[in-house]
Amino acid sequence: MHVLVTGAGGMIGRKLAERLAASGVIGSRRIARLTLADLAAPGAPAAAFDVASVAVDISSPRAATELVAGAPDVIFHLAAIVSGEAEADFDKGYRVNLDGTRLLFEAIRARGNAPRVVFASSIAVFGGPYPEQIDDDFPLAPLTSYGTQKAMGELLLADFGRKGFFDGIGIRLPTICVRPGAPNKAASGFFSNILREPLVGQEAILPVPDDVRHWFASPRAAVGFLLHAATLDTGLLGQRRSLNMPGVSATIGEEIEALRAVAGDEAVRLIRRQPDETIMRIVEGWPRNFAPQRALALGFSADRSFHDIVLAHVEDELGGRVGG
Amino acid sequence: MHVLVTGAGGMIGRKLAERLAASGVIGSRRIARLTLADLAAPGAPAAAFDVASVAVDISSPRAATELVAGAPDVIFHLAAIVSGEAEADFDKGYRVNLDGTRLLFEAIRARGNAPRVVFASSIAVFGGPYPEQIDDDFPLAPLTSYGTQKAMGELLLADFGRKGFFDGIGIRLPTICVRPGAPNKAASGFFSNILREPLVGQEAILPVPDDVRHWFASPRAAVGFLLHAATLDTGLLGQRRSLNMPGVSATIGEEIEALRAVAGDEAVRLIRRQPDETIMRIVEGWPRNFAPQRALALGFSADRSFHDIVLAHVEDELGGRVGG
Repeated sequence: MHVLVTGAGGMIGRKLAERLAASGVIGSRRIARLTLADLAAPGAPAAAFDVASVAVDISSPRAATELVAGAPDVIFHLAAIVSGEAEADFDKGYRVNLDGTRLLFEAIRARGNAPRVVFASSIAVFGGPYPEQIDDDFPLAPLTSYGTQKAMGELLLADFGRKGFFDGIGIRLPTICVRPGAPNKAASGFFSNILREPLVGQEAILPVPDDVRHWFASPRAAVGFLLHAATLDTGLLGQRRSLNMPGVSATIGEEIEALRAVAGDEAVRLIRRQPDETIMRIVEGWPRNFAPQRALALGFSADRSFHDIVLAHVEDELGGRVGG
Repeated sequence: MHVLVTGAGGMIGRKLAERLAASGVIGSRRIARLTLADLAAPGAPAAAFDVASVAVDISSPRAATELVAGAPDVIFHLAAIVSGEAEADFDKGYRVNLDGTRLLFEAIRARGNAPRVVFASSIAVFGGPYPEQIDDDFPLAPLTSYGTQKAMGELLLADFGRKGFFDGIGIRLPTICVRPGAPNKAASGFFSNILREPLVGQEAILPVPDDVRHWFASPRAAVGFLLHAATLDTGLLGQRRSLNMPGVSATIGEEIEALRAVAGDEAVRLIRRQPDETIMRIVEGWPRNFAPQRALALGFSADRSFHDIVLAHVEDELGGRVGG
């Protein structure tokens, strides 16, 4: 089987590629060839099968045609610019996140082999006011350009799927936590920073109060969602092709207690409270909790607790070791 | 004030143009100039102000720029190919209904005068299974390419509006009944045919049972929605910029009784029952009833009954006369 991953240089893309390279299968099917595409050629993990790394601008008209020329059987479409960048650069957001997606879908249609397409969407397709728990029928009402572009991608996915051009499934990822790597400037960065930095003996800034609640999944769980989506019987989805993924609803206070349980009081002392009204206002617009009944019934599974999210980070990124 | 109407050659566009020409105002503001655009130059009604008729393909990149060059203050964006055609010609549907809308919105953004934009959307943005009454928070889940394109237009409208590029409002029109003119091949055509034809002494075919229920507004009510949307205080809308319009939920049986009340048993006898399984299956996927609380609270008003819908047709299209 031939597998294509767009956005393979991103955090989730890299982890997905590593997992595919290590296992050599998706479900029960053996991978014969893996194509990893991103704006800069992604690193290619060692694998027992052919791995190609391709530098490509997904928003250029010919790129998608070249990517699907080899008729991949499974396509993970992860390529996107992130929320902050899409908000700052309106044109680039639409060019990459909307046009890039549509060009890929059109190229798949033209290629004609009707592959499985797994589209990474986001809880940013929703906007407040929210109920206590967001259910599977909550309306699409994004409050950012990124969320708008993801919602439009979901609509295209459903329509192209309905027409039989491919077999699509969209998964709305929770906020990924703990994000590995350096702190970034995303408004949501602190959710990861206050764990990742203290776990290696570094200070981190907390700009919001302890009772702020949000919806999380570990990078490991996110890769699990993508793989499950690639093998799921899509006949069970009906016409509604995009699903809220399961996750963990946790407060900052619960994050901190999970950190304390794993790394002790000295790690917790490295969190410096520095309230930021701007970040507070942004975060107030975000979902806090979901009841993802459809995804659970379809066999998607998330981290069991925030404690598990911290442990996944320690195992996957720190070789099991905590402390400075 | 300068007003632009796209799709001005269509049934609703013509009626809107006539109403604007006759009244000379939108709300309390006088119209100085009216531009009517469609693929073929629309007829220009006589008016006490300047009326321009323009032939333009909304999906060509330069068209929109030319249309907004005069900085219209109010833009009614009605141009679209209909559901049946968008379903039959996938590429044309996306080109006209999605690209045409996006090009217009981009041209308005580039022009920079932030006009009021009234976008004609449709209840086709929804898909079943439906509750007894569809409320204002029912999710976007279209089951046709046309509905997908309208839903994507709504998302663009909200995002461009949020960014301040224009002041947008989307109105989801019920099925328009009684459509004037010749019977067309739309699956929904019979809803109008079984009234319009008998009202002038002609036979009409009814392909579905009498208990089929659907959601209707007269052309007169639809024009009223557009005009109200053009003057509404959009500050009241919040972030959710597209609204389910009010209408009349009626069964075929109720349609027939309204016809009987207006035109007698002899008109009803002209309806020939000829069940069609294909049309029945299509119609089963359509909404039957709405609870359009937001629109009602914002002052949108519909026909009061199906009887009024028939009377509006007799007054507006038949000069008050019924019979062959």
